[in-house]
Amino acid sequence: MNITQFIQKLDSLKFDMFQKDFLLTWEKTRDEIDAVFAVADALRTLRDNNVSARIFDSGLAVSLFRDNSTRTRFSFSSAANLLGLAVQDLDEGKSQIAHGETVRETANMVSFMSDVIGIRDDMYIGKGNTYMREVAQAVQQGFEEGVLPRRPTLVNLQCDIDHPTQSMADMLHIIHHFGGVENLKGKKIAMTWAYSPSYGKPLSVPQGIVGLMTRFGMEVSLAHPEGYNIMSDVEKVAAKNAAENGGKFSKTYSMAEAFADADIVYPKSWAPYEAMEKRTVLYGNGDDAGIKALEKELLAQNANHKDWECTEELMKTTKDGKALYMHCLPADITGVSCKEGEVAASVFDRYRTDTYREAGFKPYIIAAMMFLSTCKDPQATLKMLAYKKLPRLI
Amino acid sequence: MNITQFIQKLDSLKFDMFQKDFLLTWEKTRDEIDAVFAVADALRTLRDNNVSARIFDSGLAVSLFRDNSTRTRFSFSSAANLLGLAVQDLDEGKSQIAHGETVRETANMVSFMSDVIGIRDDMYIGKGNTYMREVAQAVQQGFEEGVLPRRPTLVNLQCDIDHPTQSMADMLHIIHHFGGVENLKGKKIAMTWAYSPSYGKPLSVPQGIVGLMTRFGMEVSLAHPEGYNIMSDVEKVAAKNAAENGGKFSKTYSMAEAFADADIVYPKSWAPYEAMEKRTVLYGNGDDAGIKALEKELLAQNANHKDWECTEELMKTTKDGKALYMHCLPADITGVSCKEGEVAASVFDRYRTDTYREAGFKPYIIAAMMFLSTCKDPQATLKMLAYKKLPRLI
Amino acid sequence: MNITQFIQKLDSLKFDMFQKDFLLTWEKTRDEIDAVFAVADALRTLRDNNVSARIFDSGLAVSLFRDNSTRTRFSFSSAANLLGLAVQDLDEGKSQIAHGETVRETANMVSFMSDVIGIRDDMYIGKGNTYMREVAQAVQQGFEEGVLPRRPTLVNLQCDIDHPTQSMADMLHIIHHFGGVENLKGKKIAMTWAYSPSYGKPLSVPQGIVGLMTRFGMEVSLAHPEGYNIMSDVEKVAAKNAAENGGKFSKTYSMAEAFADADIVYPKSWAPYEAMEKRTVLYGNGDDAGIKALEKELLAQNANHKDWECTEELMKTTKDGKALYMHCLPADITGVSCKEGEVAASVFDRYRTDTYREAGFKPYIIAAMMFLSTCKDPQATLKMLAYKKLPRLI
Repeated sequence: MNITQFIQKLDSLKFDMFQKDFLLTWEKTRDEIDAVFAVADALRTLRDNNVSARIFDSGLAVSLFRDNSTRTRFSFSSAANLLGLAVQDLDEGKSQIAHGETVRETANMVSFMSDVIGIRDDMYIGKGNTYMREVAQAVQQGFEEGVLPRRPTLVNLQCDIDHPTQSMADMLHIIHHFGGVENLKGKKIAMTWAYSPSYGKPLSVPQGIVGLMTRFGMEVSLAHPEGYNIMSDVEKVAAKNAAENGGKFSKTYSMAEAFADADIVYPKSWAPYEAMEKRTVLYGNGDDAGIKALEKELLAQNANHKDWECTEELMKTTKDGKALYMHCLPADITGVSCKEGEVAASVFDRYRTDTYREAGFKPYIIAAMMFLSTCKDPQATLKMLAYKKLPRLI
Repeated sequence: MNITQFIQKLDSLKFDMFQKDFLLTWEKTRDEIDAVFAVADALRTLRDNNVSARIFDSGLAVSLFRDNSTRTRFSFSSAANLLGLAVQDLDEGKSQIAHGETVRETANMVSFMSDVIGIRDDMYIGKGNTYMREVAQAVQQGFEEGVLPRRPTLVNLQCDIDHPTQSMADMLHIIHHFGGVENLKGKKIAMTWAYSPSYGKPLSVPQGIVGLMTRFGMEVSLAHPEGYNIMSDVEKVAAKNAAENGGKFSKTYSMAEAFADADIVYPKSWAPYEAMEKRTVLYGNGDDAGIKALEKELLAQNANHKDWECTEELMKTTKDGKALYMHCLPADITGVSCKEGEVAASVFDRYRTDTYREAGFKPYIIAAMMFLSTCKDPQATLKMLAYKKLPRLI
Repeated sequence: MNITQFIQKLDSLKFDMFQKDFLLTWEKTRDEIDAVFAVADALRTLRDNNVSARIFDSGLAVSLFRDNSTRTRFSFSSAANLLGLAVQDLDEGKSQIAHGETVRETANMVSFMSDVIGIRDDMYIGKGNTYMREVAQAVQQGFEEGVLPRRPTLVNLQCDIDHPTQSMADMLHIIHHFGGVENLKGKKIAMTWAYSPSYGKPLSVPQGIVGLMTRFGMEVSLAHPEGYNIMSDVEKVAAKNAAENGGKFSKTYSMAEAFADADIVYPKSWAPYEAMEKRTVLYGNGDDAGIKALEKELLAQNANHKDWECTEELMKTTKDGKALYMHCLPADITGVSCKEGEVAASVFDRYRTDTYREAGFKPYIIAAMMFLSTCKDPQATLKMLAYKKLPRLI
C-alpha cells in the first residue's frame, strides 16, 4: 500500500473544498477535480488493503432520491458506510416538487445531526440543480444562525444539468485505463447519442461528460441526430474548457464522424433538450394527455434513428479498431435487453467487464467528495488512517 | 466543554429509568423529567465538541411508524445513530391495527437483538398508547421467560394521548430561551387552537403541552373554540399538576384571552376529541362513506373559526409584545403554505429560526430517553465519554 | 463465558466455508453444519455476556427480499449488525423476475463494497434457487475479473427448495432442547401438513426440515394428505441422508401415524408441489384468471382436510404426551388467528415460549453463516473477540 503518493499529490494541489458542496464539475478548479481523484484512489487503496477508512464514529448521510436508482443508491450507501456514516433516506415522493418554505424547513429538520446530503433530482429541466441550491442555501443559513452545529455538505447525485459523480468516475476509469492523466492529451472521446426504444433519458450524462472531459486536453466530439441538442449553456462550458486546456470540442450530426479514430466511445441515448423543457411545462400544468402525446411523439422521433447503434463496423473505425467503449449502465443492448438498442451485443460483451470496472469507481468518487468536504486537513487524516492501519475486517 | 455540571445535576436527582419505557410524561417524576433534560444537554455538549457519545458497539433501534413523519423519523434515526444503534424499520402497513397474539409475537420477533423500540401511533383514539403497552408487556414477558436476552425499552414517538418527545423538546427549548428552569415560575404559556384548512390533526401536541408545562409553576392557558375539546383525562392531569406545582391551568374559548400578557404562545390546529373518537369507530367499521362525511363536516366546522390566527395584532397583546412563538412544525402559514392558516407570515418569519431551534432539541431528547433506559449508571457512562474524548469525526 | 469449548469444537471439525455461499444444507458436510452451530452458539454467548462480536469496521450486507418478511428481515439485520455490517436493501419489486444480463450486472453493481448478500426468493418453483446461483456466478466472475475486490458471499434466506436459516435454527433449538446433539439418535420428528385457510404457503420449510433432520440419526416422518407432495428430489435427499446417518425417513398420509410416539411435532400448512408448478407457469404467462381459478381450487382442496389440526388429542399420542411442538411462525391458530387452523389454541399457548425461543436462534444462525464465509480463520477471530472483551454496550 502506498498512500504516500496520494498525499504528495494532494500536497501539490490547491483546493478549498472543506464545507463546500459538489454540484457541478465546472464550478471546481482543475486542482480540486484532481484532489477528488487522489482521495478516491487513496480510499480505494486503503480498502483494497483491508485498512479502515472510517473517519466518522457516528453521523448521518441523508439521501434524497426523486427517481429510482439502484446503482446510485448503492454507491452512495457504500461511500457513506466506508467513512462511517449511516444512511437515512428522505422520502418526499417522486411527483412532489417542494419549494420555498418547505425546502428551507425540511433541509434544516433533516440536518441536526447530518454530515452529508446526497440529492438525485434529474427529472425536470430547470428544477433539479435549482432545488439543490435551495437546500444548500437553507443549511448554510441554518448553520450561520446556530440552528445547525455543522453545515452538512451536498453531493449532486445527478441533476438536470450535470451528473458529476458519474462523469468523475468515468474520468478516473479513463485515467487508470490509459495509465495516467498525463497520457490523455490529444486523445479523442466520442460522446454520441444512440438509439433506445425507451423515452426521456436524462441529459445529465452527455452534459457531464462534455463539461468534464474537455478539461484534460482531450478532443471531445459530441454527436447526435438533428433535434437532439443538449443544453446550450453546457456546450458553451465545454467550448470554453477546451479552449483553456488545449483540447477540442466539436459537434457533429454523424455518429461515424465521431467514432472515426476515437480512443474512447460513449454511445448513449438521451432525450432532446427542447422536449425535456416541454415535458417540464406539461408536468407543471398536470397535463397528462399532453405528456402522453409528447411521449408518443418522442418515441416516433427516436425510431427514425435506429441506425445510431454502436456496431462492430463502427468500432472498427476507431483508433486501431480498439477504442474503449464506455457506458453508465444499464445499456440497451440489441437483442439482449431490447430488439434494437444502443449497442451490438458482441461489442457490449467484449467490454462488459470494462463497464463494470467503470461503475466501480463511483462509490470511491462519492466517498472522496464527502471526505474532502468534511475533513479540514485531508492529508493529515489520510496519513493517520494509513498509520493506524485498523483492519476493516478483523 | 463542561459535562461535569450535567453529571452533578444528575447526582442531585432521584430517578429510576433503567429498563423503563417512556410513554407519558406524567408517569415520570419531576426528577426523571429533569434527568432527561440533563442528559440531553450533556449529549448535545459532547456532540457540539466533536466528542463521541457512542455507547453501543452494535445494536438495533426498531422504529415503528404508523404515519408518515419525516421529522420524527430523522430525530429517531439521529438519536439512535448518536448512541451507536442501527435503525431497522418495522413496516406493518398503516391501516392494519395489530392486536393480541400478533402484537405479542411480532414484539418478540423484532427484539432478539434490539435495544430500543420507538413507536408512533397517533391515528386512532384509544389505540396508540394501548398498543404501546401491549408491546411493552410482550417484551417484558419475553425477557422474563428468557426469550429475550435484554428487555428493549420503548420510546413513545407520539400516540393518541401524549407526544412526550415533542413536549420535552419544547420544554428544553423554553428552558434555554429563558435562561434556566428556575426562571419559568409564573410565566404564562398560551396553548391555543388555530385555524387550519386541513383536517384531523392529532391531539397529542396540545395534550402533551398542558400535561407537561403545568409541572413547572407556569400559568398554562388552554384556548380553543367551543367543541374543540381535548381529552378530559389529560385536562385533569394538567389541573392536578398545576395545583401540586404552584402553577395555574385555565381554559378559555378566547384566543385573545390566552394571548393577553403571555410569555409564550403555541397556536396550533387540532381536531375535536369527540370527532376523533367518532372517526375511530368509523374506521373500525370500515365505513368509508361515514369517514368522508365526517371529514367534510369537520372542515366546515373549522372554517367557522378562521379568525383563530396568530396575527401581529394578537402578538402585540403578549408580554411586551414579544412572546416566544412556538410550533411543532410544519405550520400552516397564511399566504405561504395555505390561503388562510394558523399564523401570519410576518409573525412566522420573525420566529422561524426559533422554531427550527425548538425542533433541534428533539433528537437529543430521544437520545437521552434511550440513554437513561439502557445505561445502568448514566453518570459513570457520561464521565467515561467525557474522559475518553473519542472524536466523532477524526 | 466459555468460548473455548466452541473453539475446541471447531478445531475438531473439517470445514471449508471461507468465501463460500450457503444455499442448501445438503450441499454442506455434516462438519460444516456443526461448524455453523458452534459459531452460532459462540456468537450468542458473546452477546449474552455483553461482549462485542463486531468483526467488520465497515461493510454492507445486501438484502434482497422478493416477499414481505418481518421475521427474516429482522433476523438478517440483526445478524449483520452484530458483526458490524450495515444493511442496504435492494428493491427490485416483487413481480419482476430478473435474469441473464440484468442479474449479472445488478449483482456486480451492488457488490463493489458488499461483504454478504442475503436473498429471499421463494415464490416460484424452479426460480428462487436458480436466481441465487446466477447471482453467485456473477459475483464470482466479477471477483475473478478484478471488478470486485472481494467476493461477497450469499446466504439463502428462503428459496423454492430449501430454507436453511430456518431449518438450521430449528435444529439448534432441538439440540438445546434435548441437551446436546448426541441425544437425538432415534428421536422421532413428525413433519406434517396442517390445515390453513390461506393459500400457497411455500414448500421450503417442510423440504428444509426433512432435508436436514435426516442427518442426525433421527426418525423423520413426513405426513400430508394425498396430493400435497413436496419436491421428489428433496425426498430423495432425505432418504439418502437417513440411510447414510443411521436414521429413518418415512412418508404417510396419516397425521395420527406421524404423531404416534413422536418426540417432536412440526405441523404446518403448505401448498402441493404440483400446484406451485402450475402457478409458476400461470404467472409466467400473466394469466390472472388462471391464477384466481387455481387459488379457488386450492382453497377448496385445503378445506377437505380441516381435520389435519394439531389438537390436544393428537398431542396426547406423542411420546409421553409431551412432544416438543415447533413452528416457524406465524402459526394459524384455531379460534385466534383464524376460525380453523393448524393448531389448537391450548396447544399453541403451552408452547408459545418454545416457538419464540426457536425463532431466537435464527439471527445467530445467519450471523454464523456470514462469519464462516468471511473469516479466514474463524477460531482465531473468536479467540480474539473473547480475549479483547470489548463491551457491546459500555
